[in-house]
Amino acid sequence: MPSPLRNGNLPVPSPHHHHHFQSTVSAQKLRRLNTLVLILRFASFCFSLASAIFMSTNSSRSTGSPSWLHFPSFRFVFAANAISALYSLFEMGSSIWEILRSSTLLPEPLQLWFDFGHDQVFGYMVLAAGAAGVEAIRGLKSGHTCDAENSLCVQAIIAVALGFVGFAFLALAALISGFRLACFLITGSRFHL
Amino acid sequence: MPSPLRNGNLPVPSPHHHHHFQSTVSAQKLRRLNTLVLILRFASFCFSLASAIFMSTNSSRSTGSPSWLHFPSFRFVFAANAISALYSLFEMGSSIWEILRSSTLLPEPLQLWFDFGHDQVFGYMVLAAGAAGVEAIRGLKSGHTCDAENSLCVQAIIAVALGFVGFAFLALAALISGFRLACFLITGSRFHL
Repeated sequence: MPSPLRNGNLPVPSPHHHHHFQSTVSAQKLRRLNTLVLILRFASFCFSLASAIFMSTNSSRSTGSPSWLHFPSFRFVFAANAISALYSLFEMGSSIWEILRSSTLLPEPLQLWFDFGHDQVFGYMVLAAGAAGVEAIRGLKSGHTCDAENSLCVQAIIAVALGFVGFAFLALAALISGFRLACFLITGSRFHL
Repeated sequence: MPSPLRNGNLPVPSPHHHHHFQSTVSAQKLRRLNTLVLILRFASFCFSLASAIFMSTNSSRSTGSPSWLHFPSFRFVFAANAISALYSLFEMGSSIWEILRSSTLLPEPLQLWFDFGHDQVFGYMVLAAGAAGVEAIRGLKSGHTCDAENSLCVQAIIAVALGFVGFAFLALAALISGFRLACFLITGSRFHL
């Protein structure tokens, strides 16, 4: 259940830390952790968005040649990275809200489960899309489509590579949100530093 | 640092639970969690091993036709699942040791970091192999190789599907090992139920 009281009293994470010095140190650490999460979200957003844009603008120069839309894996790369970019944008907003108001945007348990669950699932999704994209490009190369359509292949390679970088930041964010959730489940508070 | 004392005193997870009843309940819960981990490891082992065997025996009946070894993605599926099966076998042993001796096989922090890190990395690896395998099969189908070599495709599909099921169990095991690691980092004990 959401607890607005505990949620609001940010600088006192647990009854064992009543001293002013301790709580100041905790608040500093918490601010650093929140800033780190925000940076990871921002990086994940940038790379995912760039990957989706690179893939979606990957139209061939010559007419009659294959477009990226003809390859299901490239569509998967685009969709996964677009979803990841939208999600990272929402999480950036939620993270900024948490830094400014020192309470979560959604009720606390819901927010923690939401963050961790989506981080994990979208992380797996972006990774799977990247792996499928690599295999599709390999297939194009071995089928000598890349010899005629070099720009298509190069742009697809860049999009897939950007997607992998976005995945790395998402996976790091998943580690932190998983730790926050475990903190909440074990101690009843999402920060225990 | 490893602490053999805390490691050995299993039924008393924290100083707040000194009562006999409480510690008995904790010990029961802990036994159930360890059994659940063992079951997940066993399932992951079975499916990964089956996937690796299915893929490695995927030789074509007719001579001169493509073998699974000619497809890098199929080699990746085999390698990822073979590694995952070996790792799951080790983790099964480690889990049985923990149930019998109520202490970890390796020193406690090392074991927890080892488990979680490998669960995450091998989980990502098996998933990426599966996604690449799906795309490779799709390429074979669209290239009409499957019309002539149907048994190759069917066996590859089964191997990839078994790999995905193995991944699901590995991902669940990663959730539990992540929670155990977070418990250890927060409370100093790997079980806090």
